[in-house]
Amino acid sequence: MTAPTLPRTLTRELAQFEGQTVRLQGFLHARRDLGGVQFLVLRDVSGLAQCVGSGLTLPLSESSVEVVGSVKAHPKAPGGYEVQVQSFRVISAATAPTPVEIPKMEWHVNPETMLDYRVVSVRGLKERAALKVQAELVAAFRDHLMTEGFTEISTPKIVSAGAEGGANLFPIDYFGHPAYLAQSPQLYKQIMVGVFERVFEAAPVYRAEEHATSRHLNEYLSLDVEMGFIEDEEDVMDLENRLLAAIMTRLAERCAPEFALLGAEIPQVPAHIPRITLMDARQLVAEKFGHPVGGKDLDPEAERLLCQHFAEEQGSDFVFVTKYPRAARPFYAHPDEGELTRGFDLLFRGIEITSGGQRIHDHSMLMDSIAAYNLNPETLTGYTEVFKYGMPPHGGFAIGAERLTAKLLGIANVRFARAFPRDRHRLTP
Amino acid sequence: MTAPTLPRTLTRELAQFEGQTVRLQGFLHARRDLGGVQFLVLRDVSGLAQCVGSGLTLPLSESSVEVVGSVKAHPKAPGGYEVQVQSFRVISAATAPTPVEIPKMEWHVNPETMLDYRVVSVRGLKERAALKVQAELVAAFRDHLMTEGFTEISTPKIVSAGAEGGANLFPIDYFGHPAYLAQSPQLYKQIMVGVFERVFEAAPVYRAEEHATSRHLNEYLSLDVEMGFIEDEEDVMDLENRLLAAIMTRLAERCAPEFALLGAEIPQVPAHIPRITLMDARQLVAEKFGHPVGGKDLDPEAERLLCQHFAEEQGSDFVFVTKYPRAARPFYAHPDEGELTRGFDLLFRGIEITSGGQRIHDHSMLMDSIAAYNLNPETLTGYTEVFKYGMPPHGGFAIGAERLTAKLLGIANVRFARAFPRDRHRLTP
Repeated sequence: MTAPTLPRTLTRELAQFEGQTVRLQGFLHARRDLGGVQFLVLRDVSGLAQCVGSGLTLPLSESSVEVVGSVKAHPKAPGGYEVQVQSFRVISAATAPTPVEIPKMEWHVNPETMLDYRVVSVRGLKERAALKVQAELVAAFRDHLMTEGFTEISTPKIVSAGAEGGANLFPIDYFGHPAYLAQSPQLYKQIMVGVFERVFEAAPVYRAEEHATSRHLNEYLSLDVEMGFIEDEEDVMDLENRLLAAIMTRLAERCAPEFALLGAEIPQVPAHIPRITLMDARQLVAEKFGHPVGGKDLDPEAERLLCQHFAEEQGSDFVFVTKYPRAARPFYAHPDEGELTRGFDLLFRGIEITSGGQRIHDHSMLMDSIAAYNLNPETLTGYTEVFKYGMPPHGGFAIGAERLTAKLLGIANVRFARAFPRDRHRLTP
Repeated sequence: MTAPTLPRTLTRELAQFEGQTVRLQGFLHARRDLGGVQFLVLRDVSGLAQCVGSGLTLPLSESSVEVVGSVKAHPKAPGGYEVQVQSFRVISAATAPTPVEIPKMEWHVNPETMLDYRVVSVRGLKERAALKVQAELVAAFRDHLMTEGFTEISTPKIVSAGAEGGANLFPIDYFGHPAYLAQSPQLYKQIMVGVFERVFEAAPVYRAEEHATSRHLNEYLSLDVEMGFIEDEEDVMDLENRLLAAIMTRLAERCAPEFALLGAEIPQVPAHIPRITLMDARQLVAEKFGHPVGGKDLDPEAERLLCQHFAEEQGSDFVFVTKYPRAARPFYAHPDEGELTRGFDLLFRGIEITSGGQRIHDHSMLMDSIAAYNLNPETLTGYTEVFKYGMPPHGGFAIGAERLTAKLLGIANVRFARAFPRDRHRLTP
């Protein structure tokens, strides 16, 4: 039992306590000694507080400390208030200088060093802002879907085969049996449409892709949605439109300081995000920008130009590209006329952030598709089986949480949108 | 574009539409033909509706169907209402009889068969009730912690070493480098206390334990919490006490039908869950029940008897057992007097559902502990490093979501509290 103490105040609450005595706890973010007067900046989960005292013996930066002091208005202090220290206590002293200076880090200067020291560099204000925004984004994702009657599921990440064939899987030794890390909950979320009709999952997925680019992670948080009893893929895009609006509303309510810190702007989500077929999109970038597009998909430059067009012409940071050809989509994509599918991508500020569409629900159509894709139906038996049992028309999509977070915040390297990223060369910390 | 249709009604809403025409969609749960009159039970996400019609050609069970009809009060129908079919449409026909009869399954009769056919047996009312309760439990976990200022984190599940030493890890081939599936986010959640002070994660963890018991899973959903700037482990137990109360309140609000279906009762969470030291607990079960306890922990029978005592004497289904000896706890457990630690377990209805405690935050104490446990500090460098940088006193706990769900609902086999369980012999579906 301890004696009654002043309750803890968070730094962001200082304005409410002007002229009063408060107790702050946090980390010693920065310190300066000016001839017997000590300035210190205390960092807690909510922000920073400038404190000033005299005769204090300050420990190393990043020590956990407690300040009791009185709150004064001070226009030059962060937040507009300063705490005049009455008592100062070291809760837990740092025993070594940090390998990087937390207040001065810039991740674009030397990203590998920043990631090597991630256990402490992740304390940086911009670093944690990205993770805070992601936490709110994921919470908004779940909360909105629950208001639309979706149920959260938890599907296996240890699987006996890949959802999209055998490529890019990390092998696991499962009690002597070969197994893999799941690259997507695709098949399981479809199965669960037979149970809850509308389901979602926010969980890690794995891609054993050997690139080490600023756009990819080998482990990332996938925001997965699947919705049954739909008419067609338009219902799925309508859902994603509403979902994105709900996410941005919540970020505006809760993460304005984080966006300001990173110099980023929260996008407006139109009531109806523009939709354009892939074929029309190709024609548009060719005719308007003189950028010819071949192949089965848009190249990165075409994605950028298409987004530029819709930003300029319709004020939208988002655009759905629809009716992808079968050649660009997996076997479970629902066919449409010709050699097209009911698959779509969502582009945001020049980059694809979602892949989605209507799926095949008819068992014989699925078996035909597996044959057309030259896949071995025997490796997919566990998946195809459920389509004998009245699966309703359904579709869904997946959003990479880190990629969306990075794009929202203008973070060029997606690895900084994950606490402890895994890439081709990085398995620690 | 489709013609305007009657909006869909859920089966649980029928009472609001007595005398009106509704449109239902769902799965054909059961069907009966009595001389030209067809009875069918439609199952949707919200429950069941009995429908009656004539001259209908009913497809196989589990087909997706649509019924338009008028709602009549009918005391013998589930929910008290029946729908008189005006039109009936097969949305997606089942093409084979289900391998198990969904309305008649009993998982205790033949659990392996039920799990072999899980892609369709998971549609059963009791099966899905368990998963629905778990979804609400996890949502309550997150929501409550956010109201207490906790931030959600997403930590790596691919790791270079185990949190608790090298045992019971699934090996992964990570681009030719040895890696493992994380058995706990322990070290990462502690690191993140340095960032957000209070953090949580609900994500899968992996234990390569070779048992195939009804109590264990090799992949399960771990509800992890870590809290900084604590006084001692009492703060952690207080938090878990409040959290459990919030969870049970939400389950009572949202899952009463699921508990009724499974014949289970939502426990009352006392304002102060009883706390007893391990030493006193041993003495109690020895003196009161004549059950001698040796070793460093309670055996399952002692756990059961201790819970019986607190249920009878204090009306509590929960009891914290505190001050575990170091021999029963990992190296990072904060020492207490003698050879004890500030670690605790939470028992619920006879079984441990949580392990938690205060952790070591002092770097030199941590290094001493690693030496005392005969661990190699070099394999733990990535972990110990952060303790040089002012980590505050902190502690936390982890709850196995499936075990808590199973215990709440009286499900003897924990595998039925997971959609697609993984065990020693089960890698599919």
